[in-house]
Amino acid sequence: MGTGPGDPELLTLKAVRAILDADVVAHFLKRGRPGNARAIVAPHWPENAIELPLEYPVTTEVHRHEQSYKSQIAAFFDDAALHIAHHLDQGKTVAVLSEGDPFFYGSYMHVHVRLAPAYPTEVIAGVTSLSGCWSQAGVPLMQGDDIFTVLPGTLDLKDLQARLGSTDSAVIMKVGRNLPKIREALKAAGKFDSAIYVERGTMDNAVVMPLKDRDDSPAPYFSQILVPGWKARP
Amino acid sequence: MGTGPGDPELLTLKAVRAILDADVVAHFLKRGRPGNARAIVAPHWPENAIELPLEYPVTTEVHRHEQSYKSQIAAFFDDAALHIAHHLDQGKTVAVLSEGDPFFYGSYMHVHVRLAPAYPTEVIAGVTSLSGCWSQAGVPLMQGDDIFTVLPGTLDLKDLQARLGSTDSAVIMKVGRNLPKIREALKAAGKFDSAIYVERGTMDNAVVMPLKDRDDSPAPYFSQILVPGWKARP
Repeated sequence: MGTGPGDPELLTLKAVRAILDADVVAHFLKRGRPGNARAIVAPHWPENAIELPLEYPVTTEVHRHEQSYKSQIAAFFDDAALHIAHHLDQGKTVAVLSEGDPFFYGSYMHVHVRLAPAYPTEVIAGVTSLSGCWSQAGVPLMQGDDIFTVLPGTLDLKDLQARLGSTDSAVIMKVGRNLPKIREALKAAGKFDSAIYVERGTMDNAVVMPLKDRDDSPAPYFSQILVPGWKARP
Repeated sequence: MGTGPGDPELLTLKAVRAILDADVVAHFLKRGRPGNARAIVAPHWPENAIELPLEYPVTTEVHRHEQSYKSQIAAFFDDAALHIAHHLDQGKTVAVLSEGDPFFYGSYMHVHVRLAPAYPTEVIAGVTSLSGCWSQAGVPLMQGDDIFTVLPGTLDLKDLQARLGSTDSAVIMKVGRNLPKIREALKAAGKFDSAIYVERGTMDNAVVMPLKDRDDSPAPYFSQILVPGWKARP
């Protein structure tokens, strides 16, 4: 079930019902950090539910394209699926929390493909971080027949520039340490002046500013750059 | 406020609160048809609220790129904004319903840009039709650094084919009478076999099928084609 982008009120009625009906509530988290999804649903946490934290393996010293990273991550999802299956086999209902929307770049998908062939599953759509960020900014990006593209900031400069140039509107995710490169690509594509930087959209400490006012220091995980495509307005 | 993709339970807690607090509830509709957004929020309709239906002008005989269409639509949004402003000027709170997410190709944006400079506004993000459709299908489209593109089925064949070929994952909207062309573009891009057709995602009468099982008859407004990009799975 999607928990939405951060504001606890952006939970859906269906998500609230699902968590209240769950025997087990599973959620992903990084070691040493409280899970964001766990915090969003806290007001609705069912008193007698079993909590199943799914802790990502520590991978900061392993590059994500290395085989050892891939094996560790695959083993982690195998293990997570086994833990969930254990409860399902006892006839329990398991709610798996997923920040934003479960299938929009969410970890849950990796558990889903392991369990859905053998168990009844339902995916409860959630509000994505995209919608959270552009609503926070109050800036519509696309209308009518506009093409909209989600780009990872990890693309190399030329690719990023070309894709920004050929789409009407875009959101750049995975900003992190890629800000200087993203800035350069947007300038080359002629879309720098209208780009907007959003941090932690819909959360209490949200930040919205024109990208040109943002320095090049690394951006936190919950940050996006909005590239509006909407020009000819009715 | 976004009303989500169709399932009334995919309303957010924030949207329910907003409609309950509203003095006036405005919603867009086509002449002679009940508004979808109106139907989604029906269980929460505030007893004493003033209803403000905003009826699109009849434009079926006017091509959307013609100047007369553009003027009619602009006049319609001017008029809608005036009606809403009339209530705001009396100190009333107006909730404007928007199917899906208000800023994801929604009509509300055209009212927003007219009113936001002069009145306090808040955009309440909603679950998009995208999330509704891929959740209904149970098919994740993108992970990690995948590029995701939203394409209108109105693009010409060559453009559609090129864009399908250069993105990892995609959703094609505005399917309508464009199905034969979309089919051809997907085949040329080598992505036909995995494409999925979804109609009315999250609604009671939802349809999900492999695109290859769908005939070429025109698709209803609420239909999308999902093009999964996710291949190397951890």
